[in-house]
This record gives sequence, C-alpha cells and structure tokens, in this order.
Amino acid sequence: MDNFILNKENEVYYECGYSCDNVIFLSLGSEKFFITDGRYTIDAKENANAEVITTNNLLKTTKEILLKNRIKVLKIDPLNWDYESFVSLSKIVTLQKIPNYSHKKRMIKTPNELEIIKKSVFLGALAFEEFKEEIKIGLDEFELSYKFKEKLSNRGNRDLSFEPIVAINENSAKPHAIISNKKLQIDDILLLDAGLKYKRYCSDRTRTISVENPTMSKIQQFNNQKKQKIYDIVLKAQEEAIKNIKIGIPLKKLDEIAREVITKAGYGDYFVHSLGHGVGLDIHEWPYVNKRNEILIQEGMVFTIEPGIYLPNEFGVRIEDMVCINYDGNMEVMSEYI
Amino acid sequence: MDNFILNKENEVYYECGYSCDNVIFLSLGSEKFFITDGRYTIDAKENANAEVITTNNLLKTTKEILLKNRIKVLKIDPLNWDYESFVSLSKIVTLQKIPNYSHKKRMIKTPNELEIIKKSVFLGALAFEEFKEEIKIGLDEFELSYKFKEKLSNRGNRDLSFEPIVAINENSAKPHAIISNKKLQIDDILLLDAGLKYKRYCSDRTRTISVENPTMSKIQQFNNQKKQKIYDIVLKAQEEAIKNIKIGIPLKKLDEIAREVITKAGYGDYFVHSLGHGVGLDIHEWPYVNKRNEILIQEGMVFTIEPGIYLPNEFGVRIEDMVCINYDGNMEVMSEYI
Repeated sequence: MDNFILNKENEVYYECGYSCDNVIFLSLGSEKFFITDGRYTIDAKENANAEVITTNNLLKTTKEILLKNRIKVLKIDPLNWDYESFVSLSKIVTLQKIPNYSHKKRMIKTPNELEIIKKSVFLGALAFEEFKEEIKIGLDEFELSYKFKEKLSNRGNRDLSFEPIVAINENSAKPHAIISNKKLQIDDILLLDAGLKYKRYCSDRTRTISVENPTMSKIQQFNNQKKQKIYDIVLKAQEEAIKNIKIGIPLKKLDEIAREVITKAGYGDYFVHSLGHGVGLDIHEWPYVNKRNEILIQEGMVFTIEPGIYLPNEFGVRIEDMVCINYDGNMEVMSEYI
Repeated sequence: MDNFILNKENEVYYECGYSCDNVIFLSLGSEKFFITDGRYTIDAKENANAEVITTNNLLKTTKEILLKNRIKVLKIDPLNWDYESFVSLSKIVTLQKIPNYSHKKRMIKTPNELEIIKKSVFLGALAFEEFKEEIKIGLDEFELSYKFKEKLSNRGNRDLSFEPIVAINENSAKPHAIISNKKLQIDDILLLDAGLKYKRYCSDRTRTISVENPTMSKIQQFNNQKKQKIYDIVLKAQEEAIKNIKIGIPLKKLDEIAREVITKAGYGDYFVHSLGHGVGLDIHEWPYVNKRNEILIQEGMVFTIEPGIYLPNEFGVRIEDMVCINYDGNMEVMSEYI
C-alpha cells in the first residue's frame, strides 16, 4: 500500500472520518496516524479511524514516526506544504511529489457520497425557497444576507459552504462582491449564490432573480429589456452546456459550448470566469470545468455549471446548478426545480 | 526600499487597504502591484492602493512583472508559499527567505490600530453582555450559539473573528469542542469563547460562567465546590500573569508565571495550551505568549492572556482577555469589566 502524508482538514477527514485545523496525517501501509495538538485529543480519539498522537510540534513528531517506521518513500502534494516544512521532511525521506494527490482520489464520488451530496443540494434548494418569502423591498444586503443565512443554516444547526453572496444590481456585476448596505428596490436584479453542508459535504447554487415577483425558478421575467436579454443568454449557455454532459466528453468541451453561446451573443468578454468546479468536502475541488481541462466526464463526478455575464456598473447574471453522473451512467441536475 | 512578495489576504490588506482570497502582492521599491483574477477587478481598482493587474495565472503574471522590472532579490515568507510556487519563483529571482515577514511587521500596532482594536474588543464585550440575557435553561449548544452569533454579528452586519465556541460541561473540557445538541441545565458550567471584527481587526474573549446566575463578570459563584476551586485557580493564574506584564519582560515569563500557579495547585498537566497569542488582522498572530518566546514586551503589542484547566469528561475552565501596551508605556486590559 501507498505511504502518504496529508495536512489539509478535508483531505484528512476523507481518510479517517475526523479532522481539525491543526493535523498531520500519515498513512504508512495499514497503519494510520492522526498527529495533532492537545486541543483536539479527546475528539480525535473518539472519532478518528487512526492512532491519535498528541504533540506540541507536529512536524517533529511526524519525522520521528517516519524514522521509527523506517519509511523511505512518501507520497506528498507539493501544493499543500509550505516550502520550509517540505524541505524539512525531504531531509529524512524521499518525497514523491503528486500535485492534487487527494483531489484526484476524491474526484470520483462513491454512491454513498452522491447520496449525501444530493441531500445537501436538496436542503440548499429548500433554503432558497424559504428565503424567497423573506425578500422585501427596503431591506439592505446585510439584512437579506442575515435572513438567507438563517434559512441556510437552519438557525445555526448547519454549517454553510461559504459566506453567501447577496448582491443587488451593480453589485451583482462583481462575481465576488463585498456585501454592502445597498437597499433593495422594486425594479432591482438580485443575485444569490449560496450553499450549505450536510455531513460535511457542500452544496452550491446561484439564482439571479427579478425582485418584482420573486421566484427561484430559472425562468425569470424582467421589465427591463436589457436585463431580460442578458438573463436569457446566460440561461441558454447553461442549458446548452448541461445538454452536452455525457460520459467520455472532455470537461473543457462544456466550457467551450457555454462560452460560444455567450460569445456569439456579443458578451464573451464579460464571462470572466470558468464554467464550473467540482464540489464535495471542499466547495471548490476536482474536476474543474474550464477551457484547459482535458479530463473526461466519468461516473461519480459532481460539478457545477455556472455561466455568467457581468456588466460593470450595471448588473450581472449568473445561473448555477450542480450536476452529477450517476452510476447508471445518466447525468442528473440536482434539485434543479426546487 | 525592500522588494517583497505576499499572498495572504490579511498581509496584503495591511499593505494596500484591500484584499481578496486570490491575490499576489508585489512591492517593488515605490511601485505596488495587486495581481488578482477577474472576479475581484472592480473592487480592487476602487479600493487597493496599488496597480491592479487582472490575470488567469497569478504566478505567471507575477514572474513577467519581476522580469520586466529586472528584479534580482525578493523578500518572501517561506511559510506562506507552497513548495511548487516557491521553486518556480526561485528560478527567476533570488528569494530572500524571511519566515513570518509580515507577522513581524504587524506585531507592533500603530496608535490608530490600537484604537480600532479597542473598539473591536468593546463591541465584543458588549455582545457578551447582550447574549447573557438569552441564556435559558433547555437551549442546546446550537441554539445558544445561534443567538450568540446574532449578538456578535449585530444580525449579520459584522464578521466574526472565528466560529464561536459554546460548550456545556464536559464539552468545555475540550479547548476546541465540536458543537452539539447538548442542552443547558441549571447546574451546568458554560464556556463561551468568541470575538468579532471591526474594520477587519479581531477581538477575542473567553468567559466560563455558572448557569445558575449568569454574569459575564470574572467573579463566578458555583454551587459545585470542585468547579469553584478550578475556576479560582484559573482566575488566579490569569491575574498573576496580567500583573507581571511590563515593557522589557520576555513574553515567555508570563506563560511561566501562569503555569506555575496552575502547576502548584496540582493541575499543570491539564493546562494543555500556551498562555496567549497576538491579535490583529489575524485572530492568531505575533506575538505568541508561550514558554519559548523570548521576545520582550513592547509598546504597541496586543495579545491575549488565557490560562485554562481541562478535566476530561468533567469540565473545563478558560478565562481570556486581550491586553495591549499603550504608547504611554502602560499595560491595559481591554474591556475587562464590561
């Protein structure tokens, strides 16, 4: 069996069912070591499927275990380790560099993981529906965001995948806008991007809606013609990309298809990010859906399809859903119609 | 002037007044470059005191700028860069490794920073007081935490320094407990550790209180004799450490003093972490107050004093306040009596 070393919270959780923000995880053949500090000892011993070692100096203790077990070669993700720690480890063991080592392992979800993620997406979509009732003219982005988080977190009982984006009009033109005290008005466009965690697995969704008659449907009616036009282009780009999701197609093809719809409509320069990203324990993980990713679509993959058009100082539109490839070979858009 | 490179959100904010989670910052003599992706361009141009460069490949663009400006030597914190990026940069410029480069710069706060931090601590202490009214028998840790966050964030208008710790009885014995559905009972001990951000600067505070008659005062009355005994030892440890904070004293001396009080009382093995840490833009930053830190106390320092005793499966006690050294040379415990 492989010998490998990890230090990222979710990567360690994937291997042993528990994690914390200060850990080194060693997998040496069939032996697993969860090396952490005294703050986490009790929880780790109760929950981690590994031998728990408590220390004030994680790296030093790790090196001692490697020496004691006469480990010669160790797989490591060079993107996850700071230069100093990497060099320090390399002095006692041959480090076999595998960028994205854990991301690659986690890219194909098991049937059980797919079920958990579907539940996460379902709960996320329900929270969008519940939040719909709270959208009131005159509330500002802070107030809207607070109510949205109340629904997403079920009043604090669930973690969020990330800090939700609640952006009104020109703020929606910034894909990662800073929240403001801008107040909602009747003819505004409102962009909502949020997700929650269920059993540590993330969901992620974006709706851009017309405030006049709030609905979380992907069919939106705007009084303003330009908003309607841009919205419909983004929706078409998403639909075209989704239609083409099939096992064996390279992921970059999806980005191309969506980008072509937007470019042909004359807004290619305003689609400033890639089409999507994998979702799992991390909110952004493999596989990425961009113009460079040659990886082929496979069963067990989970990723977002989220084209957008952002017109600076005017408004932005993004529509995002999560899709998965089930083990019957069929693509599924998760909770699209909730 | 120094040439240096940064990639951490708060370190970049410190230099140019704006930041985001995907940035490389270059300071080349008097020229400053904020290199980011298209999601952040608009906000960066409005807020960053630097030339904003938008790119899909931050590292590649950074290297181009270094070459174009004929930069030969660049200061870098080797703890902040992954191995691959560090090696890639080192091929075109001599990297001068300075661990904790930005932490060292930020360790001494300006008078203006001290004022901001005092406000942050004051608002945090007020939130503890407001939350006191919400502590009701029968609520579980999730519900208590939700109400606490409502007060700390002022219903979503402020960011928190970190996810608050709300731990009842045996959960309080875990310094970083996972939140649970454990319900509050009349004879419980309740540990509260939380802080908020004001103008991006963090506050941090812990109170361990008797539920019978909730008060955020450091004088607590427990019916249970053992709880009272442990509480009073921790309080004495904190008071002794605080009493000894003086310019010119090494920080490690404070850890020694607090640890001696707890060890003499027979609980040295149950004080499982160091005495404190600096607080600023980061919730944990320089200077650390542990048994190894020989750095001398100076004007402009801000740090926590937070001894604790944790009895597994029974309960834990921690008392934490933030202190600063003002520019008149006097130590101040911030918002201790609110």
